[in-house]
Amino acid sequence: MLGAIEAGGTKFVCAVGDDDFKIIDKISFPTTYPEETLQRIFNFFDIYANLNAIGIGSFGPIDTNKKSEKYGYITSTPKTNWRNFNFLGEMKRHYSIPIGWTTDVNAACLGEYEVGSASYNNSCLYLTVGTGIGGGAILNGTIVEGFGHTEMGHIIIRNHPDDDFEGVCPYHKNCLEGLAAGPSIEKRYGVKAENLDSNHKIWGILAYYLAQALVNYTLILRPEKIILGGGVMNQASMLDLVKEEFSLLLANYIETPDLDSYIVRPSLGNNVGIAGGLILAHQIL
Amino acid sequence: MLGAIEAGGTKFVCAVGDDDFKIIDKISFPTTYPEETLQRIFNFFDIYANLNAIGIGSFGPIDTNKKSEKYGYITSTPKTNWRNFNFLGEMKRHYSIPIGWTTDVNAACLGEYEVGSASYNNSCLYLTVGTGIGGGAILNGTIVEGFGHTEMGHIIIRNHPDDDFEGVCPYHKNCLEGLAAGPSIEKRYGVKAENLDSNHKIWGILAYYLAQALVNYTLILRPEKIILGGGVMNQASMLDLVKEEFSLLLANYIETPDLDSYIVRPSLGNNVGIAGGLILAHQIL
Ligand SMILES: Nc1ncnc2c1ncn2[C@@H]1O[C@H](COP(=O)(O)OP(=O)(O)O)[C@@H](O)[C@H]1O
Ligand SMILES: Nc1ncnc2c1ncn2[C@@H]1O[C@H](COP(=O)(O)OP(=O)(O)O)[C@@H](O)[C@H]1O
Ligand SMILES: [Zn+2]
Ligand SMILES: [Zn+2]
Repeated sequence: MLGAIEAGGTKFVCAVGDDDFKIIDKISFPTTYPEETLQRIFNFFDIYANLNAIGIGSFGPIDTNKKSEKYGYITSTPKTNWRNFNFLGEMKRHYSIPIGWTTDVNAACLGEYEVGSASYNNSCLYLTVGTGIGGGAILNGTIVEGFGHTEMGHIIIRNHPDDDFEGVCPYHKNCLEGLAAGPSIEKRYGVKAENLDSNHKIWGILAYYLAQALVNYTLILRPEKIILGGGVMNQASMLDLVKEEFSLLLANYIETPDLDSYIVRPSLGNNVGIAGGLILAHQIL
Repeated sequence: MLGAIEAGGTKFVCAVGDDDFKIIDKISFPTTYPEETLQRIFNFFDIYANLNAIGIGSFGPIDTNKKSEKYGYITSTPKTNWRNFNFLGEMKRHYSIPIGWTTDVNAACLGEYEVGSASYNNSCLYLTVGTGIGGGAILNGTIVEGFGHTEMGHIIIRNHPDDDFEGVCPYHKNCLEGLAAGPSIEKRYGVKAENLDSNHKIWGILAYYLAQALVNYTLILRPEKIILGGGVMNQASMLDLVKEEFSLLLANYIETPDLDSYIVRPSLGNNVGIAGGLILAHQIL
């Protein structure tokens, strides 16, 4: 039996599943203090004596560098209670089974890679465009990471000629996240993204930003598939606009799969994080 | 015994080496027609009856997608004789040993990873800034590639506020290569890059472009080391300028190794391609 934790900034989901990643039991509770949250995690998993491994996909930033002293920690999160919390260490003190540790978006990527939109591919990239922008990538079953986990949402892109917005990223102002995540729209127009008309010019501008990011990911990683999720992608025209801009920007420089099968939606919905956690658990068995 | 081919657009180098990647014999000749070049390759390697594998690092673009019908081909190169040439296929028709196939920059990256500047690291990125800009990356000993090989030189970056140059890339105009490779300087000022004064403002501008690329590579791949080679990096101040701009642009958003050990020069010199070829040969044994 496998365990999974989707550790989010607002809620935690814990689940156990079988070797086919089918969920057997699941619980969800709000994220409060680390001690209280840990207790609920233990209460859930302790019942399952035949648990073989647990996979954790956590909100971050987290330390994923095995050579680092703080490997397994949640690091510089704005959620001060959780800052510098040795999440993996506390889990390992309680359980002596293998425990996998990665970011929430990497876990989601792993889920889509194994049992979702990229399940017939050898590589993929998953990007969520919501309150923030985060991404993960898998090449041949392995999560792309090195000195730490990726931070694909903060790459440098070009401002659109019709957009002089200075950006909202506290570190970089006009990085991708600063220009194209949901809050940038609220800051520009004073209304939530979902309340803007579908003909508003901002959607073309956002598509231009996302397409730039996708071009750079494509050139740097050459994934077989790119999966776009998150609240902003609920804007009905966005996926097609991104594909159009991508095609213009790449200018046929390299071959990609047919765009309709290259840039796609996720297929696992809300279960993506838990699916990824179970797969991660299975990988480290 | 291992074989290596550094297949360049102007010259070919063939070598055989031992299991410690020490070169035993080496030959170099100009790149002419595919048939003539192949014959010289065969003449060189045929002598070594105990050859176990050959690794090829080739000029490109090449097809590295094992699922593709044109896997092993040199594809859309401006060198028309070589366009659509099944290089790997011809090699395999002549030799029945394993033959590794990757780009020249990936081979160089592999060389620096195993026995060069990144030999104590688990991941690295190699970028050459010369007539063009090309890059390769290794994560845990594996070359980063998916649907095809990477094309890191053509990523989208921002123009410097003091540089209104439109760029020289035939596909994208102002991509990284279009703005920051050697020929962009010749186009801007009518003189070769090496003839411009070391105080010229262009070096700061180039450093800004290269640093943007390095920030994006860092966020997307998180390599443990970045190795910068190629003719333009011969400009004495360039490496330090790039590190300065990198630091400003990243704005401490994520941790990297200390910059002096993160962004470094190659250490294998002209032997990098052959070293990488021998290592590739060893990997596929
Ligand atoms: N239909 C929509 N069109 C555009 N933006 C939307 C839409 N629905 C939600 N959003 C935006 O998506 C963001 C929330 O993204 P979501 O992925 O749901 O959450 P989170 O990133 O916090 O996990 C908000 O900024 C919201 O305004
Ligand atoms: N000292 C130098 N400073 C700046 N640019 C230089 C210097 N030396 C050579 N270059 C430029 O480097 C480019 C050649 O790069 P190189 O790596 O040697 O060749 P290639 O990329 O063709 O393999 C040319 O554009 C040349 O003008
Ligand atoms: Zn940012
Ligand atoms: Zn280009």
